[in-house]
Amino acid sequence: MAHVDLNVALLGCGTVGSEVVRLLQQQSDDFAERCGARLNLIGIAVRDTAAPRAARVPRELLTEDAHALVRRADIVIELIGGLEPARTLMHEALAAGASVVTGNKALLATHGPELHEATAAADVDLYYEAAVAGAIPVVYALRESLAGDQVTSISGIVNGTTNYILDEMTTKGLTYEEALKAAQELGFAEADPSSDVDGYDAAAKIALMASIAFHSRVSIDDVATTGIRDVTAEQIAAASRDGYVIKLLATARRIAHPEPAITLEVAPTLVAQSHPLAAVAGAFNAVVTESDAAGRLMFYGQGAGGAPTASAVLSDVVAAAAKRVYGGHAPRELPYASLPVAPIEHSRGTFVVELTVTDAPGVLASIAQSFAARQVSIAQVRQDTLPDDASAAEEPRASRARLSIMTHTCTRGDIEAIGAELAENPHVLNVASLTPVEE
Amino acid sequence: MAHVDLNVALLGCGTVGSEVVRLLQQQSDDFAERCGARLNLIGIAVRDTAAPRAARVPRELLTEDAHALVRRADIVIELIGGLEPARTLMHEALAAGASVVTGNKALLATHGPELHEATAAADVDLYYEAAVAGAIPVVYALRESLAGDQVTSISGIVNGTTNYILDEMTTKGLTYEEALKAAQELGFAEADPSSDVDGYDAAAKIALMASIAFHSRVSIDDVATTGIRDVTAEQIAAASRDGYVIKLLATARRIAHPEPAITLEVAPTLVAQSHPLAAVAGAFNAVVTESDAAGRLMFYGQGAGGAPTASAVLSDVVAAAAKRVYGGHAPRELPYASLPVAPIEHSRGTFVVELTVTDAPGVLASIAQSFAARQVSIAQVRQDTLPDDASAAEEPRASRARLSIMTHTCTRGDIEAIGAELAENPHVLNVASLTPVEE
Repeated sequence: MAHVDLNVALLGCGTVGSEVVRLLQQQSDDFAERCGARLNLIGIAVRDTAAPRAARVPRELLTEDAHALVRRADIVIELIGGLEPARTLMHEALAAGASVVTGNKALLATHGPELHEATAAADVDLYYEAAVAGAIPVVYALRESLAGDQVTSISGIVNGTTNYILDEMTTKGLTYEEALKAAQELGFAEADPSSDVDGYDAAAKIALMASIAFHSRVSIDDVATTGIRDVTAEQIAAASRDGYVIKLLATARRIAHPEPAITLEVAPTLVAQSHPLAAVAGAFNAVVTESDAAGRLMFYGQGAGGAPTASAVLSDVVAAAAKRVYGGHAPRELPYASLPVAPIEHSRGTFVVELTVTDAPGVLASIAQSFAARQVSIAQVRQDTLPDDASAAEEPRASRARLSIMTHTCTRGDIEAIGAELAENPHVLNVASLTPVEE
Repeated sequence: MAHVDLNVALLGCGTVGSEVVRLLQQQSDDFAERCGARLNLIGIAVRDTAAPRAARVPRELLTEDAHALVRRADIVIELIGGLEPARTLMHEALAAGASVVTGNKALLATHGPELHEATAAADVDLYYEAAVAGAIPVVYALRESLAGDQVTSISGIVNGTTNYILDEMTTKGLTYEEALKAAQELGFAEADPSSDVDGYDAAAKIALMASIAFHSRVSIDDVATTGIRDVTAEQIAAASRDGYVIKLLATARRIAHPEPAITLEVAPTLVAQSHPLAAVAGAFNAVVTESDAAGRLMFYGQGAGGAPTASAVLSDVVAAAAKRVYGGHAPRELPYASLPVAPIEHSRGTFVVELTVTDAPGVLASIAQSFAARQVSIAQVRQDTLPDDASAAEEPRASRARLSIMTHTCTRGDIEAIGAELAENPHVLNVASLTPVEE
């Protein structure tokens, strides 16, 4: 079969980039069959051409002039990350007529609309499967596989670092600080872990998924984001007793009231042990979609790492190449639904409120009244007697109790108002959590 | 946004077809935005226009002349099933320049190559997401999401009926006959259950998946197929004691020895309880792929049913429509690798051999010798003493034992030869199973 030649430029050559180089070398003949084109790697832009590299990286292709490189390419693979110079280089590539493949979730979740518009204006393609959940093809699924359906919610474990930390806390009884330290020593967490543990990485990913699924423009700033720094070993143990695990879930939901809108959240979440997401361990990722006709679908795999992410990049490169050979284009950004993002107070679900209370007559009644006053009905109450304080643990006097109250479906606004009222209740010593429950 | 108009013809209007009608009606505006075309349902071909139909089916669109209908369509949705007249109608549709969307696994797994060739000759598209695992987008995943990778194996639970029956046997201790009867009463199994319980439905699906993943032509006749009729409650109980569940798995593997080839099998399989496939319950389906760069991916969802299958059909319709509006075409059949199908004896794995033996000195040694003679090493042996026979169960005399022997990796040919030799061993009363183990 005769093939055309396409010039491929790689921007960035770290863990993922060097795996992209490997796959382009090893599977060159396969790729030519699959997309009808020889993919010729014409250059690799890096910050420092003299820095040490994997042996497989052809040194003669290294260049420090990314701007010149993108102008010679049919397909540009952007793996620099961050906002700049990635943003400028992508605009240059698109303007020069190249199709762009990127894994840059932060850039897309911040400046997605302008990049999509530049893509359409240049009549080329923008692919970003690698930006969400590594090797797991959720962008494909949402852009194409669910194009015949109506997505109602997306929830996912999309950050491996926090999932690893919560796993270690659950299985080994570690504190957050201990588990973070272990993750850092193993290279699973950065020295500055904020992007992961504060939920920003997951927030960027759910913003991207929601934009596609709900055909609306959503940015990382629209996501109500709570990280895992405040998750305690006690909460995890209590969840386990009740048949739950705590996962950092990113969720996006279509809501109908008070008006059609989207709610977006990243938060530590109680997940029933029988739920498929509960079994997603360590650095694995999983995304669950619910849609009108297909019902529940789950996509599971490695959400990070050089080779898995490179697999996603190369699938996009093959698709981009096939389009250049055979015509057509990738599904464009289609924000036709233009759903607004609702305040997170409008999100609906079941919630668990954990309280430490004085163990005296009438306390439960006064607490229950706070729920009743807002028409929030209680699904389950669990009361455990607590020792007076840690130092007196050997001789408990049972004057305090831990109350765990699970609601039926209500809004987050209701539950926050109830929490605020309970904090003022003289019998309530502590309001420990308002953790949403994933059903 | 201005849209072109595309004529859509529906062949067949059963459970899936009437859901397709519903989605085309309800989501008409969405689909127009997503594919740039108004999808006009111009006719529904059925065997008997006078038969009762769901209220949503517009009776004025019903026709008994499918041949005339396909000639007027831009996109033909074939949901008749079976080989004829589906095959002839699809050829007529393709020849008339229509793109075809089908859920007909039996037809594709039997006559796929001629249909793919007709598709390419007519320069149109053939889509069949609904043919494998209902709403789960495995055809997309294999055709597109893994196009940048090298798939090494596929294994899946792709038949809900048998999964339901095995689940009932496992959780309720039913016999196969009892569980089948229950499934038939609930409408989960046909009156003639052969296509499901003998594994042919799963065989068609794994043949389709393997053809795509390994870029080779594979038909249903290439699949070594064993159904679930002979699975006993005792095997399931024994598996459970050892930490396994028995699932009907469809598997396809790339092997390197004695030559690059594919092995294809449908068989009751021991799956470790910790494996993600073990938790796939009831009528749900799941497919696990292993590939060079992405590692393990799992896709999970509803594998059958009207609405889930209609979701897959409509995603293909939207894709086919977008191609007609914007140009390009779907990935064509790419059988460039032309890997042969190896005899199933060449497949490699770990196996469990279950034996009933006389409980006498030297028996284990003589059995172990059969394994050693073929260089098959034993990973685990479990021996249980059995009562003499069922009627004497209250006073066991322990003259028989059940032996469960798990091997390290070997070929199925080796294990079958060992099984045949053991059947001749005078100490062996019964060779109960040669169940492959999914790791």
